[in-house]
Amino acid sequence: MSKVYVAGIGATKIDEHWEKGIRDLMVEAALNAIKDAGIEKKEIEAIFVGNMSSGYLQGQEHLGSLLATWLGIPGVAANKVEAACASGGAAVHNAFLAVKSGVYDCVLVVGVEKLTDAITSDATDALIMAEDQEYVAFTGASFVALNAFVYKAYMKKYQAKQEDIALFAVHDHKYAANNPLAQYPKPITLEEVLKSPMVADPVRLLESAPLGDGSAALVLCSEKKLKELQNGDVLVELAGSSLSTEIFSVHDRTDLTSIGATVKASRKAFQMAGVEPKNVNVVEVHDAFTVLGVIHLEDLGFAERGSGWKLLKEGQLEKDGKIPTNTMGGLKARGHPVGATGVYQVYDVVTQLRGEAGKNQVDGAEVGLTQNVGGVGGTVAVNILKRVR
Amino acid sequence: MSKVYVAGIGATKIDEHWEKGIRDLMVEAALNAIKDAGIEKKEIEAIFVGNMSSGYLQGQEHLGSLLATWLGIPGVAANKVEAACASGGAAVHNAFLAVKSGVYDCVLVVGVEKLTDAITSDATDALIMAEDQEYVAFTGASFVALNAFVYKAYMKKYQAKQEDIALFAVHDHKYAANNPLAQYPKPITLEEVLKSPMVADPVRLLESAPLGDGSAALVLCSEKKLKELQNGDVLVELAGSSLSTEIFSVHDRTDLTSIGATVKASRKAFQMAGVEPKNVNVVEVHDAFTVLGVIHLEDLGFAERGSGWKLLKEGQLEKDGKIPTNTMGGLKARGHPVGATGVYQVYDVVTQLRGEAGKNQVDGAEVGLTQNVGGVGGTVAVNILKRVR
Repeated sequence: MSKVYVAGIGATKIDEHWEKGIRDLMVEAALNAIKDAGIEKKEIEAIFVGNMSSGYLQGQEHLGSLLATWLGIPGVAANKVEAACASGGAAVHNAFLAVKSGVYDCVLVVGVEKLTDAITSDATDALIMAEDQEYVAFTGASFVALNAFVYKAYMKKYQAKQEDIALFAVHDHKYAANNPLAQYPKPITLEEVLKSPMVADPVRLLESAPLGDGSAALVLCSEKKLKELQNGDVLVELAGSSLSTEIFSVHDRTDLTSIGATVKASRKAFQMAGVEPKNVNVVEVHDAFTVLGVIHLEDLGFAERGSGWKLLKEGQLEKDGKIPTNTMGGLKARGHPVGATGVYQVYDVVTQLRGEAGKNQVDGAEVGLTQNVGGVGGTVAVNILKRVR
Repeated sequence: MSKVYVAGIGATKIDEHWEKGIRDLMVEAALNAIKDAGIEKKEIEAIFVGNMSSGYLQGQEHLGSLLATWLGIPGVAANKVEAACASGGAAVHNAFLAVKSGVYDCVLVVGVEKLTDAITSDATDALIMAEDQEYVAFTGASFVALNAFVYKAYMKKYQAKQEDIALFAVHDHKYAANNPLAQYPKPITLEEVLKSPMVADPVRLLESAPLGDGSAALVLCSEKKLKELQNGDVLVELAGSSLSTEIFSVHDRTDLTSIGATVKASRKAFQMAGVEPKNVNVVEVHDAFTVLGVIHLEDLGFAERGSGWKLLKEGQLEKDGKIPTNTMGGLKARGHPVGATGVYQVYDVVTQLRGEAGKNQVDGAEVGLTQNVGGVGGTVAVNILKRVR
C-alpha cells in the first residue's frame, strides 16, 4: 500500500464570518492548500468534505459537488463525511483510505462549518444532534450540560480541582495569541476563567470552546504523485489514521472519566504509524471543554489516569514541556468550527512539523498526533503525522 | 490491491414506516446483511452510512456511531457519507476504497432515509438542499420543477413524446409487482400515468419517484476475509466503483439532456471492472423521474443519444430484452428512500446475479451496473458487479 503524504495545507481564519458563506470559506481554504502543494487544481482527483450541520444551519447539503464546481473542477469525485464534531477527522481518515486504496493519487480534504448566520435555527440545536435525539436531545439537554456531568465525575473520582483543570483554557489562549488564524488570539487569566459566567454547573463560559466559522484543507497524495511534485525541504507523512466509536449515549456508559474510542483509535493509529506515546512531540487534543483536554491526555497514553491535570499544572503541555499540547490554541482559543476542527488540528501539527509555527514552535518536532471527538466521545478520529525529511 | 466482494445483503421493505425510526430501519437492514453474510456482528470493522437528511428531518446526526451502538458493536470505525440522493452510492464507493486500502477487511454499508414523520420540516424542503440554496433553492424551486426543465429540453431536442417516455413508470411498476420489498408492488397503465395529476409541467405524479422510508445494507469484504467465510455457490465481486461530479447547478449547464457525471463515472467504472456496456446483463438506473431513466441509458452507453426512449418502447429493457433495466422496480416503484437508494440498487443487482430474483430473474445474469444520482446530476456514483462463480 502506498504511503500517504500531506502535500499542502490551507485554512481561513476562524471568526464570525458574517460576510462569507460556507462556499466562500471552503473555496478559500482549498485554494490555499492547493497553492501550498504547488499543484494545479485539475490535479485533484477526489474531494472529501468534513462537515456536520450545513443542511440544518445553511439549508445546503451536497457540499462535495458544490465545492468541486466552485473550485472550477467539476468532474472530480466528491462527497461529504459526517461524524458530528469528528467530521473533519473522519474526512481525513476517508481520504487516507482513498489514497491507500490506489484508486486516487491526489485528494483534497476540506473541513468546514458555519455556526453563525444560520438560516434555519441556531447552533445549539444543531450540535445536540450529535447525541441521541430520541433519548437525550428531546429533553432539552445541551452539549454543555452533558459535559458538565463528565466534569463533575472527573473531579469527584480523582479529587481534582476546577482551578487546576480550568488552566487548560489559559494554556490555549496563551498559544492562540501567536496564531493569526485563531478566533481569540489573546491571553486570558485563570481568574477571568473562574469568574466567567456559569453555563452548566460547573462548566464556565471561558472553559468552553467558542462558536465560530472556518474552513481548513489538506492535499494528500500517494508516493507516486509525490514524485511529480516540487516539494520543499520538509515532507510530512500521514503515517497513521484511525477512527473508532464508543457507546453512543453518555447515559449508557459505566464511566464518564474516560472515552473508550480515544483509547482504541489511538492504539490503532500508534501501531499503524509505528510509534508510541513517548515518541510524540506535539499533540492536538479536542478540548471542547477544559476537562476533556485533561481526560484525552490520559486516554491517549500521555498521562496516568487521574493525573492529566498535573501535567497541565506542571507546565508539561508547554512548547518546551514533556508533551507540547494545543500549541496553536486548541479548540478553546484557535476555535472550534465543528466539522472543520479535525482538519485544523492536522493543519496545526503540520505547521509544527514543518517548523513554521513561529513563536509557538516546538523545537525539533518530528511526530505529531491529533485527536478529534464527535459527540461526547461517540466517535474519535486519531491521525498521526511524521516528518520524514 | 485486494478485490472487493459482496459477502452479504439485507434490506427493509420500502414504505411509510410510521412505526419505525431511522435507527430501527438501519439496524433491521444491517442485521439482515450480517446474517446473509454468515458472519458475527463483531467481525464488522467499519461502518459507512449513506444518508442525506437525518439532521434536518429527524434532528439526528452522527448516524455512524449511533448505528454501531444499536448494532451492539461500539468500538468499530463508523461515519456517514453524504452526496444528496447519491449518498448511498457514495457510501458504497467509500467502503470500496476502505477494503481496497488494506486497512479494513470487512465493512458494512448501510443506506437509510426516513422521509415520512419528519420532526423539523418536510421532505421537499430537505431534498432541494441538493441544489444551490443561495442561487436556486431560496426561490422556492422544487426538485420536480428543475426536472421539468430537463424533460422539456429532452422532448424538444429529440422530438420525443411524453407517452413514450412515461412508459418508464409502467415498466418499473410491472417489475415491482414481484418484489416483496417494493413500496408500490402493483402494475399501473400508461393511461393512469398520463392522467395522473401534473406536478410541474410536464412531469406527472406517476412519473415521479415516491417518498418513502427504507434501509438497505451490504457486507463488503476483502479476498483475505473471504477465505474465512462459508459462502454459497455464488460469489459477487464489486469490480468497479466510481464517483463523479458535474457542474453543480442546472442553470449553469449548457445541455440539460445529458449528465456529464454519468458519462465520466461510468467510463471509469467500466475500465476498472474491465467490461464494456455490451457485457452488462442487468442495469439499475436512477429514474427519479421517467425522463431521467431515458437520459441515463444514453449517458451510460446503452443507447444512442436521443434514442433511450426507443429501447424502452421496443421492450429492450425487459428481463429478456437487450439491456434488462430496473428489474426490481426502480426508483418509481421499488421506491426511493434518498440516501438508501444507491444501496438498494446494489442489493437488487446482487439479487439478480445470485439468481434469486424470482419472477423477475434475468437468465444467466453475470454482470450488473448501478447508477445513482445526487441532485440533478451534481454527483453520480456508478458501481459494477460481477458474478465470479
